[in-house]
Amino acid sequence: MASLVEEFNDYRSRMNDLILSKDNLVIKRLYNLDSNAYAEGALPVKTKEMLGLVASMVLRCDDCIKYHLEQCKQKGATTEEVYEVFAIANIVGGTIVIPHTRRAAEFWEALPEKA
Amino acid sequence: MASLVEEFNDYRSRMNDLILSKDNLVIKRLYNLDSNAYAEGALPVKTKEMLGLVASMVLRCDDCIKYHLEQCKQKGATTEEVYEVFAIANIVGGTIVIPHTRRAAEFWEALPEKA
Amino acid sequence: MASLVEEFNDYRSRMNDLILSKDNLVIKRLYNLDSNAYAEGALPVKTKEMLGLVASMVLRCDDCIKYHLEQCKQKGATTEEVYEVFAIANIVGGTIVIPHTRRAAEFWEALPEKA
Amino acid sequence: MASLVEEFNDYRSRMNDLILSKDNLVIKRLYNLDSNAYAEGALPVKTKEMLGLVASMVLRCDDCIKYHLEQCKQKGATTEEVYEVFAIANIVGGTIVIPHTRRAAEFWEALPEKA
Amino acid sequence: MASLVEEFNDYRSRMNDLILSKDNLVIKRLYNLDSNAYAEGALPVKTKEMLGLVASMVLRCDDCIKYHLEQCKQKGATTEEVYEVFAIANIVGGTIVIPHTRRAAEFWEALPEKA
Amino acid sequence: MASLVEEFNDYRSRMNDLILSKDNLVIKRLYNLDSNAYAEGALPVKTKEMLGLVASMVLRCDDCIKYHLEQCKQKGATTEEVYEVFAIANIVGGTIVIPHTRRAAEFWEALPEKA
Repeated sequence: MASLVEEFNDYRSRMNDLILSKDNLVIKRLYNLDSNAYAEGALPVKTKEMLGLVASMVLRCDDCIKYHLEQCKQKGATTEEVYEVFAIANIVGGTIVIPHTRRAAEFWEALPEKA
Repeated sequence: MASLVEEFNDYRSRMNDLILSKDNLVIKRLYNLDSNAYAEGALPVKTKEMLGLVASMVLRCDDCIKYHLEQCKQKGATTEEVYEVFAIANIVGGTIVIPHTRRAAEFWEALPEKA
Repeated sequence: MASLVEEFNDYRSRMNDLILSKDNLVIKRLYNLDSNAYAEGALPVKTKEMLGLVASMVLRCDDCIKYHLEQCKQKGATTEEVYEVFAIANIVGGTIVIPHTRRAAEFWEALPEKA
Repeated sequence: MASLVEEFNDYRSRMNDLILSKDNLVIKRLYNLDSNAYAEGALPVKTKEMLGLVASMVLRCDDCIKYHLEQCKQKGATTEEVYEVFAIANIVGGTIVIPHTRRAAEFWEALPEKA
Repeated sequence: MASLVEEFNDYRSRMNDLILSKDNLVIKRLYNLDSNAYAEGALPVKTKEMLGLVASMVLRCDDCIKYHLEQCKQKGATTEEVYEVFAIANIVGGTIVIPHTRRAAEFWEALPEKA
Repeated sequence: MASLVEEFNDYRSRMNDLILSKDNLVIKRLYNLDSNAYAEGALPVKTKEMLGLVASMVLRCDDCIKYHLEQCKQKGATTEEVYEVFAIANIVGGTIVIPHTRRAAEFWEALPEKA
């Protein structure tokens, strides 16, 4: 199932390159700012990535969920922690979040263990 | 076209099993509560399933729409009734609901007649 | 608490008049079509108003909720039925719907009994 | 990549035909009204299509985005203009719009030049 | 009715000052970037403000709507043009946008003519 | 400004009482489950409350934001931490979140220090 992860990452970076090649300054700066928002600060990176994950889940954006799941795994979040994030997303956002939780659960299993 | 329905149901139950296998109590209870919400009460089950359908349409969740369409058909909703639900969803939620109505219309045709 | 209802209805009709006075044809037709969507059809008016109510709740539009609550009461929906609609809205839409349910509960009490 | 466009248009018109064949009057009128909203008026058609595009992007409806991109290209919108619409959609709607911007960027490249 | 406008602007700038006083760099840069997105470019400022308006309407954010209405008036948008934006927002976003259109219509009347 | 907090809490508990007095079992269980979701687990309570806060912000629910801000303060979250949550909410959800951030900033100042 590793190809699920590769396919996501490959399309993501090809299209980001296409977008950035058009030189729209506002988009470039926003994409840059996006990385800053998750940098170590008063809150640790792992917490921030879980904040990004829960926000993506209640807004029901599968690709954003995948991205933050990947970051969560790399920052050492455990399955138990990630499912507690899923639980909050499902309670706040309602059962409409369930189909996205299914795809999130599948992707989480497909992610390689942290190197 | 029956495979559209089977594929949906198969993925749905495999992933629900995966999620529930992680033993997160909040998620388990929420999924359980979800079934209770559509049980016979002051309102009949068919009406409740149509309420679930229209809510899923305006929130634009294709998988939720499919699930409730399946339930509506099993509870005896007619094509004319279901399209009246579609109409309200399109009026309340706007033309942004149209692409989901397309996929709903396709799925409705693919559903087997009530046994 | 009757003034809660009157205030809502008064502002609603004054502003609708203002909007319609500008003679935008698309808006005029859409507002007209809106009424048609809830007319008696394969589904009874009361069911359609409950469909409008649940859609308004999951989309979290207080004014739309108030409007459909008023219609529901006029069409004879009972408190028990209306709370079953609330339950589905809260399950599908999540706890984010709770604050709107509070205002809905307050407005429902304020509505005069059906003449 | 032209098949991305053809596939979208083909599915769209087949399903619209299916929906309209059910003769729900409210849906028929709404779909008709939808076309009127983008007709030449105080604002030119190209501007209206860009308004439809930005609305579709912040509401994150890929099919709606594709439809309006196609209309924008036919009305002569340039890549630079379309990316300024993308920028506003990303700023207003946040990074949650990025995955939809990726698919929009891909579709924009796939669209044939205006005849 | 001028106080509707003044009250909005006053609260808006007092709270922006409070937020910016906390020196969160990401927020500061995002607020700065926000202004850039509406600057003259391939598209004129008036068009960009109408794009911001329609996006705010379909996302149903009253304060954002007010802000862009004010900008639209200052950039010379006419009542007829603004109502064509309202029409597209209502068609795309559905009748759920109507209550926000009411408040938008009221605010538009309250805005002073362009100096 | 303490009355901002008291008024919110008072209305919230009066209306919750009204809703629960109607004995709808699904609503009762959901409200109960809501508390469980934020209980100490693999993740600490403070983190969970920040997850609830960011979810409420991107879904743009002022009352939910106020509730979680109050919980965050009681669990010892600092102003700097809370503004990092605000930053992520604004980046993920876009400038549409700004008006809610303004009301959040005002409420945060109004909250009494943790006892």
